[in-house]
Amino acid sequence: MVVGLGPGPAEWMTPEAGAAIKAASDVVGYGPYLDRLALRADQRTHRSDNRAELDRARLALKLAAEGRAVAVVSGGDPGVFAMAAAVFEAVEEDPRWLDLDIAVAPGVTAMQAAAARLGAPLGHDFCAISLSDNLKPWAMVERRLRAAAEGDFVIALYNPASRARPARIGEAFDLLRRIKGRSTPVAFARAVGRPDESLTLTTLGEADGKLADMATLVVVGSSETRFIARNGARPWMATPRAYGGGR
Amino acid sequence: MVVGLGPGPAEWMTPEAGAAIKAASDVVGYGPYLDRLALRADQRTHRSDNRAELDRARLALKLAAEGRAVAVVSGGDPGVFAMAAAVFEAVEEDPRWLDLDIAVAPGVTAMQAAAARLGAPLGHDFCAISLSDNLKPWAMVERRLRAAAEGDFVIALYNPASRARPARIGEAFDLLRRIKGRSTPVAFARAVGRPDESLTLTTLGEADGKLADMATLVVVGSSETRFIARNGARPWMATPRAYGGGR
Repeated sequence: MVVGLGPGPAEWMTPEAGAAIKAASDVVGYGPYLDRLALRADQRTHRSDNRAELDRARLALKLAAEGRAVAVVSGGDPGVFAMAAAVFEAVEEDPRWLDLDIAVAPGVTAMQAAAARLGAPLGHDFCAISLSDNLKPWAMVERRLRAAAEGDFVIALYNPASRARPARIGEAFDLLRRIKGRSTPVAFARAVGRPDESLTLTTLGEADGKLADMATLVVVGSSETRFIARNGARPWMATPRAYGGGR
Repeated sequence: MVVGLGPGPAEWMTPEAGAAIKAASDVVGYGPYLDRLALRADQRTHRSDNRAELDRARLALKLAAEGRAVAVVSGGDPGVFAMAAAVFEAVEEDPRWLDLDIAVAPGVTAMQAAAARLGAPLGHDFCAISLSDNLKPWAMVERRLRAAAEGDFVIALYNPASRARPARIGEAFDLLRRIKGRSTPVAFARAVGRPDESLTLTTLGEADGKLADMATLVVVGSSETRFIARNGARPWMATPRAYGGGR
């Protein structure tokens, strides 16, 4: 079972995910995700590096083919920029793996946690784009940013920065500024649900890529997304359900 | 608190959502969502029609301003085509409402439940588009479908059909067929997680809008999304993490 742990806190992990981990003989995952779990002494853990998704998927499939009850854990939702895609990329490498009983347990993903804290920025049509050019050419990222801007979608940017490529998010803002208005609301939502959670609101005109790190989810509004001012509190960020004044 | 109940089964509802409902003096929502809950005799329920989101949001804010502990319930994630946007649309109508302590409890939304059953169709960049033209002009839906196709996103279509507008999904397929390949994988995921769940796989060339009803989520692949054949079982539908062969 490919299991989504959600963004961090136990209150955001589904009962299905908790039960899947309890039922597992073997738990496979990136170290920090395994560290979140209270496992029993009889459960084997298989830690791997963050970048080794495909190796992790192969190990999980191999263990399952040996008859082990395997949980592959992902932060967030395994179906959104996480382990499910890696498992199904590997599954054809051994014909026996195709006969395995594979299931995916969905979870709350980073953009949903960020949206919940911000108000309702994803209240209308939206896109999710990973800025990692580890697995796709940067030209493809640019094509998608341009299409998302031309469709006036709200845009959730995953993996906005990494140690190897800190400037990518700045290039994305530059591209979006050429198409979208400078007053478009932008939010940096960092480590939502974890003790070091922080939220920063700004506009596309002012947005500074340096505010994003590997734990940040960036939300760029549509032309209808707005900030709702409050007394002595952070404004809400919301996108109306109706477009162009609706009905 | 605006609470996401998830797609249906209790195993997909977060502990936070369960606790929020328990803590509420008043639960506001569309009737069928209220029927899912095991409420106590001391909890007041406020049922409303499916279409009356803004009235429901106003009622919830009014009750909260009277000092009641209110849970507004949504299916799926309240932040995704659901109640959170309605609450923040209404919140400025009364200055006292801006001082309320409003929080959103995220939940698993329909496209995540559908993706979990199908394999990993959302494994790469994707868009979510509501086909309801109740609150936006159809020309805007067409503009977004075109942009999503031009960006080669995986597309999750919410509200693909309704009694009043059964033909919209067929028009959407026609538009997408003019841009995307006819062999593009398409899935109709109906009532996922509920007893009458059904999944239908087809291609964009063959996709028949009549297969979609109000309980259906439609997933249209990118150029890289594919079906993975299995012996005696439904194929998996998956989008690789890498684009264009990646590395």
